[in-house]
Amino acid sequence: MKAAFYTGKGKFEVSEGKAVAPGKDEVRLDVAYCGVCGTDVHIYHGVMDQRVGPPQTVGHEASAIVAEIGEGVANVQVGDRVAVRPLKFGEPHAFDKGHAHVGKNLKFIGIDSAGAFQNSWTVPAYTLHKLPESLSLKHGAFVEPLAVACHDVKIGRVKAGENTLVIGGGPIGTLIAYVLKEKGANVIITEVNEARLEMLNNLGFTTVNPAKEDLMAKISELTNEKMIDCAFEVSGSAPGVQTMTDVVNVRGRIVMVAIHGGDKKPVDLFKFFWSEIELLGARLYEEDDYEEAIRIASSGQIPFDTLITQTDTLDNIQKIFEIIDNNPAGMKYLIDCQN
Amino acid sequence: MKAAFYTGKGKFEVSEGKAVAPGKDEVRLDVAYCGVCGTDVHIYHGVMDQRVGPPQTVGHEASAIVAEIGEGVANVQVGDRVAVRPLKFGEPHAFDKGHAHVGKNLKFIGIDSAGAFQNSWTVPAYTLHKLPESLSLKHGAFVEPLAVACHDVKIGRVKAGENTLVIGGGPIGTLIAYVLKEKGANVIITEVNEARLEMLNNLGFTTVNPAKEDLMAKISELTNEKMIDCAFEVSGSAPGVQTMTDVVNVRGRIVMVAIHGGDKKPVDLFKFFWSEIELLGARLYEEDDYEEAIRIASSGQIPFDTLITQTDTLDNIQKIFEIIDNNPAGMKYLIDCQN
Repeated sequence: MKAAFYTGKGKFEVSEGKAVAPGKDEVRLDVAYCGVCGTDVHIYHGVMDQRVGPPQTVGHEASAIVAEIGEGVANVQVGDRVAVRPLKFGEPHAFDKGHAHVGKNLKFIGIDSAGAFQNSWTVPAYTLHKLPESLSLKHGAFVEPLAVACHDVKIGRVKAGENTLVIGGGPIGTLIAYVLKEKGANVIITEVNEARLEMLNNLGFTTVNPAKEDLMAKISELTNEKMIDCAFEVSGSAPGVQTMTDVVNVRGRIVMVAIHGGDKKPVDLFKFFWSEIELLGARLYEEDDYEEAIRIASSGQIPFDTLITQTDTLDNIQKIFEIIDNNPAGMKYLIDCQN
Repeated sequence: MKAAFYTGKGKFEVSEGKAVAPGKDEVRLDVAYCGVCGTDVHIYHGVMDQRVGPPQTVGHEASAIVAEIGEGVANVQVGDRVAVRPLKFGEPHAFDKGHAHVGKNLKFIGIDSAGAFQNSWTVPAYTLHKLPESLSLKHGAFVEPLAVACHDVKIGRVKAGENTLVIGGGPIGTLIAYVLKEKGANVIITEVNEARLEMLNNLGFTTVNPAKEDLMAKISELTNEKMIDCAFEVSGSAPGVQTMTDVVNVRGRIVMVAIHGGDKKPVDLFKFFWSEIELLGARLYEEDDYEEAIRIASSGQIPFDTLITQTDTLDNIQKIFEIIDNNPAGMKYLIDCQN
C-alpha cells in the first residue's frame, strides 16, 4: 500500500508502506479523503519535527471506509463509512478533571503517531464516528474541522439572536461562521485577505475588512450599538487580540480558537474588569461535537464544494503543500488517499 | 456639619459642609464609619482629578444610621442602621444587557458625586441595605469591600472542595480568601509583603511568598499536583498576570479583580487554548452580593478587628492618608465620621 511520509522541512515522499493489521479494539481503514490542516502546514515548515519525528505519515481530517476490524470491535462493521476523531486518550491525571480531550497524556493521531495521508490506516475503534448515507466521503473529510467549529461555538455558549464576530475568515473561521448561522446567531466576519473576503461575500456573509473600514464603527452600525455578544479570535494575530476585547459588550465572551505561540501578546485586561468580559479557551473537540458536526454536515447547509480549493492525489501531496504555501487565500485542500 | 474635601493632589481639607435635605426617594444618613479604599488613595494621588472634580468629598465604604427620609421612601426608617451600595444607575443601554452595575451610564457615588467622608450624607434610598443587630457599625463599614469579594467568588463559580489561589493578600485579597473559606474551598494566598504574610499566617491562611519559594512547585505540592481550579488576580502586577495562567488546571478559571490600567500586559494566550482555561472579569457588586456580604459579616467568621490597622476621626483624615502612603503593609483604615 501507498503512504506519504513527511521526511523533513519542506519535503514529502510517497512510497510503499505496510498496512498494519488491526489489534484488539483497533480498526484498519481504507482512507477516502483527508483535508490539509494548518497544523500539517506547520509540520511541513519543519517547526514541529521534535514532536512529529520524521519520517512520519501525517494528516488527520479523514473520511474512510472500514476495511478490517480487530478483536472486540463492536461499534463498526467492515464497509461502514466513517470520520475519525484522531485523539488517543492516555492515563487520566487529576489536573485534567476528566477532560480527556485536552488531558496531560493525550496523544494526537497524525502528529504524535501515524496519520491519514496513506491508503490504509489503523486506529483505535473508539475514534470512529459513522457517516450517514446523505454525507459523501468527500464532504466527510470536513467533519474534523467542523467539529472544531462546533466545539468553539459550544464553549462560547452562543444563543439564537446574539451578535457574533469571527476574527479571521480562513477555513476554521468560515466553518465557525456556518455553525453560528445554524444556531440562529447574527454573524459578522472580519478578514483582511481580499480573495477570502470575496468568497465570503459570495457565500452571503456580512464581512468587514479592517484595513479599509473603521471596524468598530461598522460593528456599532451593524449591531445598532449593542456590539458583540461573542467574538471568536481565529486570526492568531496581534490586531486580532486587540479587536477581540474592543468589540465585545458587557459580559461579552471571547473564544480563543487560535494558537498564539511565540512571544506573549499584550491584552487589554482593563476591559475584562470594566465590562466583566470573559475569555474562554477552546481546543479540539469532544464526542458530542463530532455528532453535532455530522448532523450539520449532513443537513446540506454548508456548500462544501465551494470551500474546496483543490483536490489531488496522494502522489501529488508535495505539489499540494507547495501550492498552499503560495496561496494564502486558499480555503480547503483535500488529498484523495486511494489514488 | 463637618465634611472632608479632597482639594487636589495630596490634600484633604476638613470644613463646614451643608447637610443636603433628602429629595424624593432619597435618604439623609448620619455616616458612622467609612473605610479607605485603594481608589480613595488613587484619588489622593491626584490621578483621577478629571473624574472627581476637586474640591469633592470622597469615600464609599460606609456604615450609617438613617437620619431623615425623603418622600416615597419605604425601604428604611429613621434610626435604621445601614450599609450603602454606592451605585447610581443611569439610563439602560443595549450594550449593558441589563447589567446596570457595570453599565455605560453608571455613576459611582463617592467618585462621580459626593461621598461618605462627612457627618451627613444624602443618597438614593435604593442604595441602602439594613444591617442586622449582630453587626456593629464599625464592622458594617466592611460590607462594601466584602461585597466586592462575594461578587468575585460568585463570578469564579467556586464550589466546596476546590483549590483556589488568591494572588495578592491586601484588603480585597484577604476578604476574597475569607469568602472562599466560607464556601468550603481550599485557599492559598500568594503575597510578597512580609508584614502582610505574617498577618495572613497568624490568621491561619496557607501562604506562599514567590520571592522566597518556588511558587509552582509549592502549589503542586499543596494541591497534590492537581493545581488550581480558580485563581483570583488581585495584585495588578505583571508577575501576577504570569502566575494566573501558570497555576490553573484544565478548564481552570481566573477571576480578574485587579484594575490593570496603563500599558497592556503580555498574557499567555497559548495556555487558554491548550488547557481551555477561562478569564472572567469582575467589577463591583450586585444587590445579592451585598446580602451575601451582610450574611457573612454577621456570622462572626471574619476577625474584622484584626484587619483594622487604624481608626481615626474625620479631622485627622489628612494624617491617615499620609500614613497609608508610608505603610504598604497596612490593611484597613477606618474614618470615624461622627468625630
